[in-house]
This record gives sequence, C-alpha cells and structure tokens, in this order.
Amino acid sequence: MTPNRLKRAWAEGRTTLNGWLAIGNAFSAEIMADAGFDCLTIDLQHGFLDYSDVKGMFQAMRASGVTPMARAPWREPGIVMKLLDAGAFGVICPMINTPEEAADLVSMVRYPPLGTRSFGPTRVNFAAGPDYAAHANDEVMVIAMIETAEAFANLDAICATPGLDGVYIGPADLTLSLSNGALPAGLDREEPEMIEAIQTILAAAKRAGIGTILHCGTPEYGARAVGWGCDMVTIAADVSLLSAGSKAAVARTRALLGGDGQGDADGSPSSY
Amino acid sequence: MTPNRLKRAWAEGRTTLNGWLAIGNAFSAEIMADAGFDCLTIDLQHGFLDYSDVKGMFQAMRASGVTPMARAPWREPGIVMKLLDAGAFGVICPMINTPEEAADLVSMVRYPPLGTRSFGPTRVNFAAGPDYAAHANDEVMVIAMIETAEAFANLDAICATPGLDGVYIGPADLTLSLSNGALPAGLDREEPEMIEAIQTILAAAKRAGIGTILHCGTPEYGARAVGWGCDMVTIAADVSLLSAGSKAAVARTRALLGGDGQGDADGSPSSY
Amino acid sequence: MTPNRLKRAWAEGRTTLNGWLAIGNAFSAEIMADAGFDCLTIDLQHGFLDYSDVKGMFQAMRASGVTPMARAPWREPGIVMKLLDAGAFGVICPMINTPEEAADLVSMVRYPPLGTRSFGPTRVNFAAGPDYAAHANDEVMVIAMIETAEAFANLDAICATPGLDGVYIGPADLTLSLSNGALPAGLDREEPEMIEAIQTILAAAKRAGIGTILHCGTPEYGARAVGWGCDMVTIAADVSLLSAGSKAAVARTRALLGGDGQGDADGSPSSY
Amino acid sequence: MTPNRLKRAWAEGRTTLNGWLAIGNAFSAEIMADAGFDCLTIDLQHGFLDYSDVKGMFQAMRASGVTPMARAPWREPGIVMKLLDAGAFGVICPMINTPEEAADLVSMVRYPPLGTRSFGPTRVNFAAGPDYAAHANDEVMVIAMIETAEAFANLDAICATPGLDGVYIGPADLTLSLSNGALPAGLDREEPEMIEAIQTILAAAKRAGIGTILHCGTPEYGARAVGWGCDMVTIAADVSLLSAGSKAAVARTRALLGGDGQGDADGSPSSY
Amino acid sequence: MTPNRLKRAWAEGRTTLNGWLAIGNAFSAEIMADAGFDCLTIDLQHGFLDYSDVKGMFQAMRASGVTPMARAPWREPGIVMKLLDAGAFGVICPMINTPEEAADLVSMVRYPPLGTRSFGPTRVNFAAGPDYAAHANDEVMVIAMIETAEAFANLDAICATPGLDGVYIGPADLTLSLSNGALPAGLDREEPEMIEAIQTILAAAKRAGIGTILHCGTPEYGARAVGWGCDMVTIAADVSLLSAGSKAAVARTRALLGGDGQGDADGSPSSY
Amino acid sequence: MTPNRLKRAWAEGRTTLNGWLAIGNAFSAEIMADAGFDCLTIDLQHGFLDYSDVKGMFQAMRASGVTPMARAPWREPGIVMKLLDAGAFGVICPMINTPEEAADLVSMVRYPPLGTRSFGPTRVNFAAGPDYAAHANDEVMVIAMIETAEAFANLDAICATPGLDGVYIGPADLTLSLSNGALPAGLDREEPEMIEAIQTILAAAKRAGIGTILHCGTPEYGARAVGWGCDMVTIAADVSLLSAGSKAAVARTRALLGGDGQGDADGSPSSY
Repeated sequence: MTPNRLKRAWAEGRTTLNGWLAIGNAFSAEIMADAGFDCLTIDLQHGFLDYSDVKGMFQAMRASGVTPMARAPWREPGIVMKLLDAGAFGVICPMINTPEEAADLVSMVRYPPLGTRSFGPTRVNFAAGPDYAAHANDEVMVIAMIETAEAFANLDAICATPGLDGVYIGPADLTLSLSNGALPAGLDREEPEMIEAIQTILAAAKRAGIGTILHCGTPEYGARAVGWGCDMVTIAADVSLLSAGSKAAVARTRALLGGDGQGDADGSPSSY
Repeated sequence: MTPNRLKRAWAEGRTTLNGWLAIGNAFSAEIMADAGFDCLTIDLQHGFLDYSDVKGMFQAMRASGVTPMARAPWREPGIVMKLLDAGAFGVICPMINTPEEAADLVSMVRYPPLGTRSFGPTRVNFAAGPDYAAHANDEVMVIAMIETAEAFANLDAICATPGLDGVYIGPADLTLSLSNGALPAGLDREEPEMIEAIQTILAAAKRAGIGTILHCGTPEYGARAVGWGCDMVTIAADVSLLSAGSKAAVARTRALLGGDGQGDADGSPSSY
Repeated sequence: MTPNRLKRAWAEGRTTLNGWLAIGNAFSAEIMADAGFDCLTIDLQHGFLDYSDVKGMFQAMRASGVTPMARAPWREPGIVMKLLDAGAFGVICPMINTPEEAADLVSMVRYPPLGTRSFGPTRVNFAAGPDYAAHANDEVMVIAMIETAEAFANLDAICATPGLDGVYIGPADLTLSLSNGALPAGLDREEPEMIEAIQTILAAAKRAGIGTILHCGTPEYGARAVGWGCDMVTIAADVSLLSAGSKAAVARTRALLGGDGQGDADGSPSSY
Repeated sequence: MTPNRLKRAWAEGRTTLNGWLAIGNAFSAEIMADAGFDCLTIDLQHGFLDYSDVKGMFQAMRASGVTPMARAPWREPGIVMKLLDAGAFGVICPMINTPEEAADLVSMVRYPPLGTRSFGPTRVNFAAGPDYAAHANDEVMVIAMIETAEAFANLDAICATPGLDGVYIGPADLTLSLSNGALPAGLDREEPEMIEAIQTILAAAKRAGIGTILHCGTPEYGARAVGWGCDMVTIAADVSLLSAGSKAAVARTRALLGGDGQGDADGSPSSY
Repeated sequence: MTPNRLKRAWAEGRTTLNGWLAIGNAFSAEIMADAGFDCLTIDLQHGFLDYSDVKGMFQAMRASGVTPMARAPWREPGIVMKLLDAGAFGVICPMINTPEEAADLVSMVRYPPLGTRSFGPTRVNFAAGPDYAAHANDEVMVIAMIETAEAFANLDAICATPGLDGVYIGPADLTLSLSNGALPAGLDREEPEMIEAIQTILAAAKRAGIGTILHCGTPEYGARAVGWGCDMVTIAADVSLLSAGSKAAVARTRALLGGDGQGDADGSPSSY
Repeated sequence: MTPNRLKRAWAEGRTTLNGWLAIGNAFSAEIMADAGFDCLTIDLQHGFLDYSDVKGMFQAMRASGVTPMARAPWREPGIVMKLLDAGAFGVICPMINTPEEAADLVSMVRYPPLGTRSFGPTRVNFAAGPDYAAHANDEVMVIAMIETAEAFANLDAICATPGLDGVYIGPADLTLSLSNGALPAGLDREEPEMIEAIQTILAAAKRAGIGTILHCGTPEYGARAVGWGCDMVTIAADVSLLSAGSKAAVARTRALLGGDGQGDADGSPSSY
C-alpha cells in the first residue's frame, strides 16, 4: 500500500500543512494538489459537494502524492466507509462529543478485529495498491472534531479513545457552542478565552499522544497555531482563495484606474 | 430582454473589467460572479470545460447581473449558436484572420436579415426574457480575436466588418505568431514590438468605432492597458487565482515557520 | 441576508403557492422558477434526484427570487445541514412522528444557542449574502411532515415544538397510515375521514401558531385547501406536468385526427 | 436490428406524432417516452443540452420502443456520426440549403458504398442489436431541414437527393428567412404566404417520394398539418409543457382564490 | 406492475445468476444487462458510485428485463427508500446483525400495513408501471446480508423475520468477523470452517423458507455454491472483468511476443 | 514536461501495447491504466463518450504513467486542440484521406512556427508540467488514420507529411471502403487482400520513417501484427472486455450447472 505520508510526517514530528476543498470539482482539486500541501481535505460537511464529486477529486489528486483526506458530513457509517473505499487516507468527523461517539467513529474506520468496517476496497485497491487491506488499519487515519461544549467537557476521554489518530479543532463551531451563541462564528479567534480553549484541546491531545489540527484562515494564524503545538494547520481553502482573490483583483484594478475609471495615457499605472 | 450592461458601459465610455473562467464548475462561476467584474467569460477554447459545464455556469451567474460571455472553441456554427441559445450575451471567437472569417462569425450571431443565426432561444428566453428575440440582434455582442500575423495584416479590414462589436487581443498567440515562435508565449508582454503591436490593434479598432479587450495577467498590466485605450481588460482567471493563491499560502506559511518547520512557542509568528 | 419572502408572506397572512421539483435538472428548475410560485421545493425524498442535483437547481432558481426549499430524504443530520448550507431557505422533513423527533429536527436547523447546527454556510453565503449567519436562525424555516397515525396521535405536542415553523401534510402517507393500508395512496382525498384528518391537523397547527402546507394534485384542490386554512398549497409538480401534459397532447392530436389517423385535406381540424 | 418503427409507419402511410426534447435530462426523456409518441427527437441544436446529455436520454428511452431521433447542432460530421453511434435511429440536420449539402448529409449517415459514415456502432450495437451494421443503411433515417430562402429556392433539388428520407420544416427560421426578418419568428404560422410556403415544401417532398415533418406548437395545428399531408407532426415539447403548464397552474389557482388570495372557508372552490 | 422475474424464478426453484456493478456508469450497466444475468445488483456500499450514478444505471438496464437490485450503503432509511423509488426491485442491506435490525429493514421496504415505507414511487411508476403501488409489497424483495459473527449467532432469528425474502452471504466480511481478523478477506473461501459457516447459513435460510445468495468470484465457485443450495449466485463483477481482462490481454500479448517484444515476420503467432 | 514515454519507446524500437476506452468513465479508465498498457486511447469518435468524460478520464489515468492518447471525433480544430489542452500526449484523427488533410491535422497540433495550434495549455500545464509549452511540439504525437480507399491511394503522400508521427490503421473502415461495402466491417481481417492492404500501409509508413499502429481485437492478432512491423497494437477495449467477459461468465456458469440449471448437491462442480 502507498504509505500515508501524513502519518509518517507526524510520526517524525514534522509540521504539516492542509488545504481545504469545498468546490466540487476535480480540476480545482488537481490545481490545489499541485501547490505543495502535505494533505488536502475534501469537505463533505459544509462544502458545496458530495460523494459524487469526491470520486473525481480523489482521482485527480492521486498523481500528486498529497495525502487525500475527507471530512464526513456526519458520523454516519454509510458515508464514512464509502469515503475510505473511495480512497481517503483519513477521515475527519464533525461533532464528536463523547468518548462513545469517538469509539463508534474509530470502529467504522477499522477492519476487524479493531473495528467493524465492512470489507470492499473497490477503488482504493487501485489507488493505494492491491495490498491495501493488509495495511489499512495501520495507515488510515481517523480524526475527531472537537467543536462543542460537550466535547470540551469530555476532552480527555475522547482523546483517550483507542485507535483515534488525532483531533481537529473547528474554531467556528467551538466558539458558537462554548459561548452559547454569544460570540459570532469565524476562524482565527483572538478572544483570550478561545485561544485558551484551543490550547487546552491541544494539550489534552498531546497528553493522549495523538495528533492535532487547527482550521485556520490565514498562513499567519496557521503559523501561530504551529507555535501552540499543532501537528497540522489548515491554511487555505479553495472558496476563499477564489473569492478573496477575485475581489482583490477587481479592487486593485479599480484603485489603479482611479475614481474616473480611466487609465493613464502613457501606459504607466504609477499615477493612479 | 435584460439589457446587456457591458454594451451600455462601452457606449457610455466606461472602462470595464472581465474575469476569466476555465474551471468547469458552477460554484466557482458563482463565486467569481460575486466579485464585482462587469463581465465574466467562460473559455470553451482553452478552459478545462465544454458546453456541458457552461449550462450550470451561466445559470449560476444569472442572479449576479454580471454580463455572461463565452469564448467559442473555434469558429464553428454549431457551438457558437449553442452558446448564444444557452445565454451568452456575447461570443468571443478565436483566430479570426480575415474579413471573410469575421463576416462569417457575425453572420452566426445575428438573426436575419443581418445574419444567418438559427432561431431557438430555448434557455436564453428564460434568462434574458421572453422578448429576447426582438432585441438579440441589438444586444448580443460579437468579438473577434486578433492573435495571428495574418489577422494583423488584415487588421483594418477585420475591424471594418459590419456588425462586429469589438476585438479581443490574445497576447500569447499573437506573440507566437508575430515572432514566428521566436518569442515564448505568455501574457503581459514587455517587448516594445509587442506593446506596439497591441497598440496598433487598439488604434485600428478605435478608428473602426468598435470596442477593444486585452487579456492581461495582472491588475497592474490591466490598468496600463486601459491607459492604452482598452474598453475592457481581463484581469483575473479562476485557474491562476487558485494556483497562485494556494502556492502563495503554502510558501508564506513555510516562510513563517522558518527552516525547522516549527512555530514559535509563544504563539506569535513575528519572530519567523 | 436576502429575506425569506415566504416567511414574510405567512407573517402577513398571504396565501402562498408551492411548486414541486422531482426531476433532477437545473433547467427544469429554472423554468419552474419562472412560473410565479412563491416557493419551490426540491424533493430529495421521493424525487428522482439527490444532493448532486440540488446544487445546480438552487443556483438556477436564485435569480428568480422564488423561495428555495427542500424536502430532506429523512431526518438525518448530514443531509439536512447540507441542504441548508447549499441554499435552502427551509427544510421539510418527512415522517416526524413525535415531539422528540420534531425537536431533534429543529435542533439541526438552528445554530446555537437555539440548536446544534454546525457552522459553515459555504455556498449560502453567496446566495443569501455574507450576513447569512447573523440572520439564519430567524429566516430559515423548518417544517415537519405529519403523515402517520403516530404523528396524528402526537399532533399537539409536535406542533408545540419550539422553533418549528410549520407542518406539511402528506396525504398519501397519511392515508396509508391512518387507514392502515386499507385506503389506497394518493393526493386530493375525498373521503370524509381524510378531509377531517387534514382539517384536524390544520386546526392544531393554527392553535400552535405555526404555518400549514398541504400537498395537492390540482389547483382546484389547492384552492379548497386554502379555504380550510392552509398557508401554502403545493399545486403542481414537474413530473405530473410533463407526464400528464405530454399524454394529453398525444391524446388530443389523435382525437383531432380521428380513427383513421388522417387529417382533413383542407387544413381545418374542425371535422375530426 | 430492432426495426425502425417510424420508418415502417411512414411506409404504411400512418400518420405519426413526434415529441421534442430540449431539457437535457434522462428522467424527463423517460417520462416523455411513456406518453405515446411515435418518435422523440432530442434537440442538440437549440436545446439546452449536448451529447453528454444525449447518452442517458437515449438509454432512458430505449425500453419504451419509441423511435429515438436527434437534431444535430449543425452539419458537422463529428457530431452527426456520434449521434448515430449513440443510438439515434434518425438524424435531423438544420439549415440544409443546397442539394450538395443534402448529399453531404446523407453521406455522413450511410456506410459505404452509399456514403462515408465511419464504422463503430459501439453503443447502438447494444441498443439496436448486434446485427445493426447489416441493417443500418436501410433503417436509419436522414432528414434535412428546409428553413431558409436558399433552401426554398433549391427545394426540388434537395428533395431529389438520393438516400434522403424526408424533410423537416422549421417554421420559425423559414419565416425569418423568407420574410428577410420582416415577420417575427414563431410556430403555427397563420400568414397565408407562410402556409403556402409550407404546403409548397410538402408538395415537393411528396413528388420526390420522401417524408415530411412539420414542427408545430399545438395539437390543433399539428392536426391541420396532417391535413396538409405531413407524415409526422411535432406537437409537444418538454420546455413548453413545463413552462406553460406551471404558469397555468399558478394562474388557475390564483384565479380560484380570487383577488384577496383567500379560499372559501367551506372548502368548496366553487365560489372563487 | 412489471413482475419481479427474480422472485418468480425463485418461487419456481430455478437457479439464478447475479452480476455486480461497482462502476458508476450507465453504459457499463447497459453492457452487463445484455449478458444474460437474471439480476444485476448495483453496489452502493463498496462500489465507486452513489445514488447519482444509480439513476442512469437503472434506466439503462430497464430495456433488458434483467431484475434491477441495489445494495444499500447501510441500513439508513433515507437511501433505502430512495433506491426503491428509483426502480430497485430488491434491496440488499449490509451488516444485518440482529432480528431487530432485520425487522427494521423490512419495515423500510414495505408500505403500511406491513411496514413504514413512505409513499412516492416517482420514477418506479414509469419503470414498473402505474400500478406499482398496488403490487410493490408483493414484488419488491428485501435481502439481509449475513456477514458478521453477531449475525451468525442470531441466524435463525434473523431468517425468521416476517417479510424478509432472503439472505445474502458476504464471504469477505463474514471471514474477517468470524475469524476476528485472523483470516484475510476475500471471496471463494476454501477453509473448511468457512465453507461450513456458509452452509450453516444456507441451511438456516432454507429452514425459514427464504432465499439465499452467495457472493462468488468465479463461475466455478458459483456452481459449487448452487450445489450447496444457493438460489442465486453472484458470479461476475464489472471491476474484476475489466481489471482481470485487461491484465490478461496485456500478459497474453507480451507472452506471444516473447522476451524481445518482437512478433514473427510471417504473421503467425504460433512461434511465440 | 513529463516525457512522452510512448514516443521514446518507438524511438528505441520497442513494441508497445495500446488499450481502448469507449466507456466514458474515470474509474474504468483508472482500472485500465493499472493493467500494464503503454498507452491508452480515449475514443471520442465511436466511443459512447465525449469531451466532458475525457476530463476525468485523463485525470484518473495521470498517476499511472500510461501515455494518454485520444481519437478525435473528426478533423475539427476546436476539439483537436481541446484534447491537447486537456492532457492528450497524442491525437489520432480519423479519415485522413489526402496529404492536405494530413498537413492540416499536423498544423492543429503544433505551435508556431510548425503549425497553428492556439496557445493555452490550461490543464496540461498541471498534468505535464509548467514547461509544457517549451516541449509540446517535440513530445505531442499526431497520428493519421488510414482507413479509406482514397487514403490508400494517397498513402505515400500522406506518410510523407512533415511532422506526422505515425499512421493508425482502422481495419473496419478500411475494409468497407476498399471493398466498397462488399466485405463486412470488423477487426482482425483474414482476407488475403486485406492483410496485404494492411502490410502495404505498414511498409509505406516504414519507408517514410513514421510509426504504425493497428487496431486489433485480440492479443493473438496483435502479436501477428507486431510480426508485420507494427510499432503499437491495440489489443483490448473496455467495451469488449466487459461484454465478452460477462457473457462468458454467464455461459460458463450455466454450462457448469447443466441443462437443468441445478448444481450438484455435494458442492463439487466436477459433475456438471
């Protein structure tokens, strides 16, 4: 089986970078797979895409060697197992609130005797190699999202779940839940209580010997989070790159053109 | 019929901005349609997409009010007319090299008595309104690409084609053709002879009273081109935004993390 | 955020009309969105479509201003939340049989502190506006289907569920369940006991101060249902329009042509 | 090979009915195939669909036994031959203006020695049977559209093209072209000169011993056209059925509800 | 309603053959439907496909008369009911471990009073006929997979579930579970304990008067399984046919060409 | 740029094997790409697929390193150039009958100064590398199909076309054309005159110093053709593998089961 390079990087203590895919398109995935991320996660929960899009995206990412990951829409066995069979080297599951839920999630991802995953690696046998079945329990990663007050209260118990490879911190939901809706959703929190909450989760995971990922909105916040001990940081998402990038290009051009919308006749933009 | 806002802007002498779509996805098109461009062009020639993608992209762009344009893969009547029926308010056609080709192109876009476009505005009747047929000859724009030495030699004759609304300058092909392969392809030319060639085309179009568009790679070059008299400049493309943006995010994060790939323990990236 | 026009209409006591989409196609959705309905519901339960079709349908409906609604395939959090993130301004959920199920449904649709919806309005941020998150709890509608004997027995308790916006009556399932299979399924019931059952539900909802919708097969029955107090009636469905309409066209033509299948030589169909 | 039932019907002098598909969806095609038409034509010229949609539509129509036909986007050999390989039992080609064009079209549809169609009935071998190749030259129909002044001038020569099975009259384009844009486009013409033009075409085809089809907008006009001698009439189209049908349902309901939008409390719509 | 030919064959004691579809494509399904199987099962659990693919596959299989079956991804009511509405004449559900789960599954498949299936046979009404609703409870088959140690322990109780039509034996999962991971997954087991386990299941089903299906990898093993009493055997799968077949063609050619990769000049392969 | 391994193999005199893709699916392409072919050709001419399918197929093949080739539907510049931009390392064009047509084809595939290919390697820049433009004229292969009597008459002139990399022999069309329809279409010809015709083409190409490919139906015929001097032989196609393979599995099982369709009770198939 193709080794899970993300898992190896973590084992070697290397910091890793994750990209986020919420546009359901194989070409945008192929473009992102060319950018140098260690891992790309297809978001089936909030992304504007579903399994039918995932197929081509995993295929388009295969040549790059980037580790293909998926966030499941929910802790539902049908889709979790389908994502693995489709080629995910790791599954991130939202809203894991109790150790029972964490154990249930792990069970979906592991073949017996470690779990109850059903056997049928139809496509992943091609993508990862015909010996996939023999190595999947070792290579495939299972990540629980910690993003509610309930999960926060159960932090150590969740992190102690046998077989769990790591936790993923979703700052938006975590903020909504810990503040009971008092703070607005959003990434890259600056409130001291939220930074403390994030660091508390990181510390608990570290104690349990599992990995940590933080969903960030910028390279700058990502770098801070690495400083807090994150094994991986999500630093860019296709939707934001396209939306912010295109708006910036329009704004920049209009600014260069000045208020009258007319360029300078000498061809130099310096005077705008 | 919904007015063609791009045509009105040109009539009023307002400079306009175009975005470029080469990813065949309705969501990326919807995102780009939210960015403030005057016009978005779906590239059926070099884009990684075809008519089957165009359908959803035009639908996703409709609510924004941005003018929907398409570049045809070639001067072939089947696809040119299909793009119009699908909702394009303008068609850009590559490699128009002679006035005869320009006239042929115009003919595909105009209903009798101005041309030979076949009648059947099946979807555009919904997108543009049930009175589309009565106004299409006035509202729909037809743009010829000037991008070869042969076209350059026929410049005034092409620009004089009755019914032609404008010319689109493709700097990559124009450079390859004018230099007979001696200069590499690419946008945002700095060679004096290429800038002169571009300005020659702009001047010819202006003399003929038709519009001008230049395909640019940056807002900065776009602003320069406006200074040269362009009515519209293409300043951003989905593929570049995603590719360059994701690479920049990775590079920025790695730079912040320094050579050892580890963040600063105090959580501040300032020391990287 | 774009206001939910359906919710406002109900608040103002205006009767509203709903159209039903069971063909998974963005163009048929765009056509239906042009017809004057207040609301269009994409049926993910019994429609021949799934989430992969919904994406383009919501995008194609956006320009029309019709309120986009979806019926979830089942009370499963993964898909319910995905429909909201994709742009649904309301979710109709089948087979809500107990107040606990109703409360669970409401919880999926509301952000904290009102519920447990996970945050990530990826596409709806573009369709409804970047301030979506601040208004979604107020604007998004959650509708429970009352269509079983068990639900009927729990009627008042279900209607009293905090946050529930309305009930949707599915006459086919309700008939099957209340009659324990003795009566055939179908819309536009004429049995006195079924009309009474429907009116009982309407009355309970009205007492609870929530809205009511009845799934009807014809404008005529829809108008009767409005007379019974429905806030919205579903009066047309894409499949029926196409199926009944095409059969009627064939039958009408064959009738005009008479038994011999030959038209009248003078060009007048009056003699057939 | 499955016999071409449309061809047999014409041979036996039976009048036949055609349905029109411009929505690119296999389910709407399957619904229409259930309605009793003799033939269904997928419109690749003006329909909001292309070859990628045709595949599933032909497959969905197969079980019904309706004769599958396609209108090509243009007289281009690539797509014409692809449609045949995909399962079309007949091809209608727009804008055949000269006998040379008609002969060229016929050549694309016939294997040697009758034409130059390339061999490779990949899917049609399954849909029509493994002996397709032996019978295709006899069974597959090729239909030229007569819809321009130039075609009208060349009428007898076009109709005399060896191998041509029939002509299809497109009233909208024919009107635009014959009137040089003076008359508006549209179906079901009532102008005496247009009815005469149509009858002139029908007579020429009859003299040449080939079939005739008229594109009509209603059963009523279709029946008149049969009276004029048409072998087949197109009497219904998916887009119109859906658009007109949904608008009629909304209008009918609003009319029943009266100006105040409120139904009658006794449940009877009779008082609206 | 079109009769369920598979059910009739079982009732008459005829052995039946099943083909397996894990490629999400309507053409490969149409090809397989032409091969003479009694039944084709689309695998939504481990196949590289989902509901969005199933639509076209069922449509493409319809003309052949082969019985269309689907394996659900999991015992989740949303997708199970959707598969039935889409045209499945039978549903196979993985991982049925207890009689309660079996009863729950049956309930999803039967309309009241036999179960709780929701009414809305939108597409199957066309595929199976407008009287589908009246016959579905009799015609539609529901099959439980027996593939875990827990299910094995509950064998008789599961088989006794009222309304269950049969059991499907998945040897790969059954082996993993019964051996607690000690034996590798795979089909066509030769271990005596596994053959015994399979025969134990077959005997239990026979005692309960329900049907039996074994998933086999070859015709040879399938024939053996028929000898053990299977009512149906799965003997071929699209992925294996394509993968093994293409590898065999390459290997065979390379073998014919010998070590030097050069054919014999006389054109005869006999000397390779 | 990723080197064109097929071109290198030919340069080194190694015999190569080609697989044929006529099913429009990325997974079947990925499966075939795993089988050991040197090259895979997607057939846009007779395959049941078009450009919209090609996108995902090329992406799914990328990781394998197999050389991706496409057969264009026809010598039409729009689609030929699109295939190259999408990632084809070679284009096979049907029905090249004259040296002028061959030169026109070559021109479409080469950037200036060697041809008139328009610049815009949008996706191939990712698949082949950002230096694609600098190497494409050297690496991309252009292959003319020789399959008509006219082409046969122009054989040497076609083969002498500057820039042409090879000829592809289509035996079915060649037979139809040379025999003027007297011989049936089909592969693996045994008629002496057809074998001679094939060998004549091979000899002409060899004299011109260009490569040769023969479309074969079996490894055995492929090996013979290598003996005749073919540089590459097409030996397997997805449709045939699936169709013949599934039919063989059914037949083999039925044969094992004997005439009564019942297996042997002792579980051994030896007695069937």
